[in-house]
Amino acid sequence: MLGWNLAISMICGNCNIWKGASSTSLITVATTRIIGEVLERNGLPAGILTTVIGSGRTIGERVLTDKRIGMVSFTGSSEVGVHVSEVVHRRFGRTILELGGNNATIVMPDGNLELARRAAVFGAVGTAGQRCTSLRRLLIHESLYDAFVASLVAAYKTIPIGDPLDAKTLMGPLHTAAAVKEYEDGIAEITKQGGSVLYGGKRREGPGNFVEPTIVAIDHAAPIVQTELFVPILYVCKFSTLDEAMAMNNGVPQGLSSSIFTTDMRSVFKWIGPSGSDCGIVNVNCGTSGAEIGGAFGGEKDTGGGRESGSDSWKQYMRRSTCTINYTDKLPLAQGVNFDLSA
Amino acid sequence: MLGWNLAISMICGNCNIWKGASSTSLITVATTRIIGEVLERNGLPAGILTTVIGSGRTIGERVLTDKRIGMVSFTGSSEVGVHVSEVVHRRFGRTILELGGNNATIVMPDGNLELARRAAVFGAVGTAGQRCTSLRRLLIHESLYDAFVASLVAAYKTIPIGDPLDAKTLMGPLHTAAAVKEYEDGIAEITKQGGSVLYGGKRREGPGNFVEPTIVAIDHAAPIVQTELFVPILYVCKFSTLDEAMAMNNGVPQGLSSSIFTTDMRSVFKWIGPSGSDCGIVNVNCGTSGAEIGGAFGGEKDTGGGRESGSDSWKQYMRRSTCTINYTDKLPLAQGVNFDLSA
Amino acid sequence: MLGWNLAISMICGNCNIWKGASSTSLITVATTRIIGEVLERNGLPAGILTTVIGSGRTIGERVLTDKRIGMVSFTGSSEVGVHVSEVVHRRFGRTILELGGNNATIVMPDGNLELARRAAVFGAVGTAGQRCTSLRRLLIHESLYDAFVASLVAAYKTIPIGDPLDAKTLMGPLHTAAAVKEYEDGIAEITKQGGSVLYGGKRREGPGNFVEPTIVAIDHAAPIVQTELFVPILYVCKFSTLDEAMAMNNGVPQGLSSSIFTTDMRSVFKWIGPSGSDCGIVNVNCGTSGAEIGGAFGGEKDTGGGRESGSDSWKQYMRRSTCTINYTDKLPLAQGVNFDLSA
Amino acid sequence: MLGWNLAISMICGNCNIWKGASSTSLITVATTRIIGEVLERNGLPAGILTTVIGSGRTIGERVLTDKRIGMVSFTGSSEVGVHVSEVVHRRFGRTILELGGNNATIVMPDGNLELARRAAVFGAVGTAGQRCTSLRRLLIHESLYDAFVASLVAAYKTIPIGDPLDAKTLMGPLHTAAAVKEYEDGIAEITKQGGSVLYGGKRREGPGNFVEPTIVAIDHAAPIVQTELFVPILYVCKFSTLDEAMAMNNGVPQGLSSSIFTTDMRSVFKWIGPSGSDCGIVNVNCGTSGAEIGGAFGGEKDTGGGRESGSDSWKQYMRRSTCTINYTDKLPLAQGVNFDLSA
Repeated sequence: MLGWNLAISMICGNCNIWKGASSTSLITVATTRIIGEVLERNGLPAGILTTVIGSGRTIGERVLTDKRIGMVSFTGSSEVGVHVSEVVHRRFGRTILELGGNNATIVMPDGNLELARRAAVFGAVGTAGQRCTSLRRLLIHESLYDAFVASLVAAYKTIPIGDPLDAKTLMGPLHTAAAVKEYEDGIAEITKQGGSVLYGGKRREGPGNFVEPTIVAIDHAAPIVQTELFVPILYVCKFSTLDEAMAMNNGVPQGLSSSIFTTDMRSVFKWIGPSGSDCGIVNVNCGTSGAEIGGAFGGEKDTGGGRESGSDSWKQYMRRSTCTINYTDKLPLAQGVNFDLSA
Repeated sequence: MLGWNLAISMICGNCNIWKGASSTSLITVATTRIIGEVLERNGLPAGILTTVIGSGRTIGERVLTDKRIGMVSFTGSSEVGVHVSEVVHRRFGRTILELGGNNATIVMPDGNLELARRAAVFGAVGTAGQRCTSLRRLLIHESLYDAFVASLVAAYKTIPIGDPLDAKTLMGPLHTAAAVKEYEDGIAEITKQGGSVLYGGKRREGPGNFVEPTIVAIDHAAPIVQTELFVPILYVCKFSTLDEAMAMNNGVPQGLSSSIFTTDMRSVFKWIGPSGSDCGIVNVNCGTSGAEIGGAFGGEKDTGGGRESGSDSWKQYMRRSTCTINYTDKLPLAQGVNFDLSA
Repeated sequence: MLGWNLAISMICGNCNIWKGASSTSLITVATTRIIGEVLERNGLPAGILTTVIGSGRTIGERVLTDKRIGMVSFTGSSEVGVHVSEVVHRRFGRTILELGGNNATIVMPDGNLELARRAAVFGAVGTAGQRCTSLRRLLIHESLYDAFVASLVAAYKTIPIGDPLDAKTLMGPLHTAAAVKEYEDGIAEITKQGGSVLYGGKRREGPGNFVEPTIVAIDHAAPIVQTELFVPILYVCKFSTLDEAMAMNNGVPQGLSSSIFTTDMRSVFKWIGPSGSDCGIVNVNCGTSGAEIGGAFGGEKDTGGGRESGSDSWKQYMRRSTCTINYTDKLPLAQGVNFDLSA
Repeated sequence: MLGWNLAISMICGNCNIWKGASSTSLITVATTRIIGEVLERNGLPAGILTTVIGSGRTIGERVLTDKRIGMVSFTGSSEVGVHVSEVVHRRFGRTILELGGNNATIVMPDGNLELARRAAVFGAVGTAGQRCTSLRRLLIHESLYDAFVASLVAAYKTIPIGDPLDAKTLMGPLHTAAAVKEYEDGIAEITKQGGSVLYGGKRREGPGNFVEPTIVAIDHAAPIVQTELFVPILYVCKFSTLDEAMAMNNGVPQGLSSSIFTTDMRSVFKWIGPSGSDCGIVNVNCGTSGAEIGGAFGGEKDTGGGRESGSDSWKQYMRRSTCTINYTDKLPLAQGVNFDLSA
């Protein structure tokens, strides 16, 4: 999340080093130059935002261990995040970690089902399932499961796939060939674990890293449901009670985003309360990637605990001190101690 | 800092495990029982505050690695703090670290010198120099150095040392025999590094871990000035300009507390501003341990970065979620994307 | 609302003059003495809370016109409130006005009806209808009107009336004989305007100012519904849609308290939103006098607009200044004007 | 202060009626049209900002008495402000009043005198003394009075007066011929009350409403010092102690802006504290019109008490309600009353 982090950090007066994904070096360079021009046009040195290009293993490691870099904000996998967290905190640095997500939406019988259907399709298929907040797990009340899944499949059939620069396209390609492999391996493993593909499941022939948007019916207890596949595969699961659905929602290691569709206030408050969703983003009647702009963005548990934005995120980017100014001729002593010198 | 941490944590609804210092096990047990009685009298289970007794190496390690323990607040040495920080953050836990301090007070020519003298003596001698915020380094403007040091020595001569339960006592014993050794080894090393003892410097004969409160003149560049001796040894150093004094203040690895004595507003704002003291506590006209109650308590750099109290410290003790509640029949999509299904 | 006002005012460091109701002079004196003793026990002069006894016309007027009295907090009728507001603001004083209420509760078909029934009875009958937040108008959805009114009448029949010091009593006497007259005149006028008494409607024979708790069915358009009778008379009215019910709620000159019973989130947000209730207190699933402690207490329109408590009410009790401190050697000029003197 | 008021009010969602000064009708119309075009370009109806042209006596009165206009923000004289305050509050409307000022600057011996001199000239002469925050009274410590006044007179001699559209001009004409009469009558009255003109004092021959920027030495006790002349006449007065200077600062009916020049922190805190300046704007080391943008703008006493901007000024432009939402099956009762129905 380059934008939020860097914007707030620069507002707070910091110099910044930005390392983009290894697969997007040219974009990183181009973006840095654009920002540099804006900075200089406004009388600021372009160098307050510097880019480094290179592999995480060499360049990244130097960033992690350098005491002069007060804070490291990292977006990536939970595996790499563990290393970042450990190394930076060993030197008492600060981290903002936005790691893996495994986001679920709960559909209750009293929810607006048309809204839920559109939110689910956008959440699972938009950006070809390559958002940190993409919908991975759709938890549907048993009373409406069959009809709802059927309507989803019907919607999936109509999704225009193709050139992402074409305004009519709703789903573009995967990021790299490696992502296509992750998709195909994922489908294979899902099948092995008893999941059944209700729609899609295959890569698209022809040029480009295109795959079919995919709906999978699977037992929520299957191990693969615990992991994040960064591709457009959506698990659909059935539940009987809100408590059961919330346990499913919370029953994965990641804790980024979550949402519920209901019109009953009692369910809303249960969901957003201390015994409800354990994620960082807890939505009601919008999708998992629905409305986060401006709010504190980030998640709990293996998602890393960081928050990149929100009303008090600036505190992470600044040194903070507690100043007591005494303008009297009397001396305040700690804990009201009496300490009178005779001389 | 048992009180602040546990009070806020309990107010925030958490269950707590408390491990006191290994040398104070009986006090830990007694305090826990008192708190437990208060809890039960108010209809709460005593078990929301549990105590463990044992060595840090065995018991402490289990606390650090247990994923069920969301936050670890640790007060102790920077060496152990490194380990705590690394291990807890490897599992994406939270930490509040209050590690070593090396606190300085700056005395400017336009300050209230009588106030400064009393603050210095209390800061260095109170609790026998065994506070995290105890004064370790007194930075005195060259124009008043000689007279100020002389007045300090005069004050030190009058300090009543003895039984801490006697109301007239201003300085009691050290915590353990090991602390007396730390004091004696410290004096030896100071002398080796060119420091000269202006007052004190010896342990007191007789029963109890008593030592003399000690004033040492030393070059601020001596290596030992970089470390924290948790005993009543005060370094006095000379400076010419405020900038020089602030550079000394910031020129140690620790960053807990600091203070200045001046009546000039321009010096005050320089001191509390972004180019001023880099500590967590930045006082004006009171000592390093003068007035911290209620404020955000903790420090930067090797002090570990944690804050145990203050107006927003509760956020560390709670799960925080960003809730967006949509009560309309329209669906907000991330970043205002247009995503219309035809079916 | 003596407690909130005076507590906050005293915390803010003010001296206070308190004038109680003319009919409760002995209570005023007794309370002031108790507070005075507490103040003196804590080292404060009892005189920071002073009482005056007398008629509003003579004593009160001097308070209103005295420039030394920075703020006047008045609880009473809208008629007197107009005069207070006019006179105090003519001298640029501040006011907190808590004037008449005419509080309504809306019962929706999807609400918890047992909760609504209990809230209605407590709101209308508790303190014999002599609270500023007492329920005056009960707006019931047409689909459940008959059954709900029947259950109310059944509940009214069981209310123990009598000595307010008896723990079993739920309804005590009216405040004065004048209040009994207001009750009887009210019933007569209600009948004249087409209202029909469903329960009660008569004063109780025997000693004391006792009357029957009363339920009246009336057209909401009847003029008397626009006024506040400070006695236990409850109007019940029927509505078809939430919009209609909200229009009734807002269709009186007063704007103190209001509440709705519903479990549908969409109704909740409509009710608490900008097009919803125009009162100062807007409750959901509790009565009009249900839960205001700690919140900003007061109302809009002819209720006078004041707020006696709440998180920022202290600002009314203090002088507030905007301080800009310049510690540099440069001079900021208004609106960035360039104004260079050559000499 | 058209900008602040209307900007915040429109952000808060209100429709607005704007009445400019009677002498600036064409500017009012032109500005309204510009704003209307901006609004329409952004998809908002131009009518959310409406202008009325006419005399205060006819048009203004209808605004004051119309219950549909929830808030009246008035900038003008204290005399008219009394009427506005009285009439609007009689109908429980809200007001923001920015009435007369009589702003003082205190110059202490330890202040930056060059900064003070420039601030004083800009404050008194800028906009030809026709700002609400223009400097009217300059209170100078006796030890530097003579030299400081001499340096002021020297600066006044160099001020370029003329066409306000010429970039070199520092002082333009008065607003109207009536303002020139106010200036000349003021000088006559000042002389009658014992004031002596140290510089200026006459209108400039030739076309346009030009007058000389004027410095007057006068006893602070002279009655005319209590009133605001909205022209470039500056009173200079002598004091011995800070307490005396603060008493002078506070010793007029108006309470808009004030400032002090000092580098001593103790004077700063005394000045900005509860016993210090009683104005709404309390500056340090900048002029009375130095730095108010963004802060809460307005003043106390006869200045009317309003605040047009600042971090919480939006609260004045919105209806505020205290919402308690109960999502349980239990009923909270006021003040924890026990009220159990048997039926």
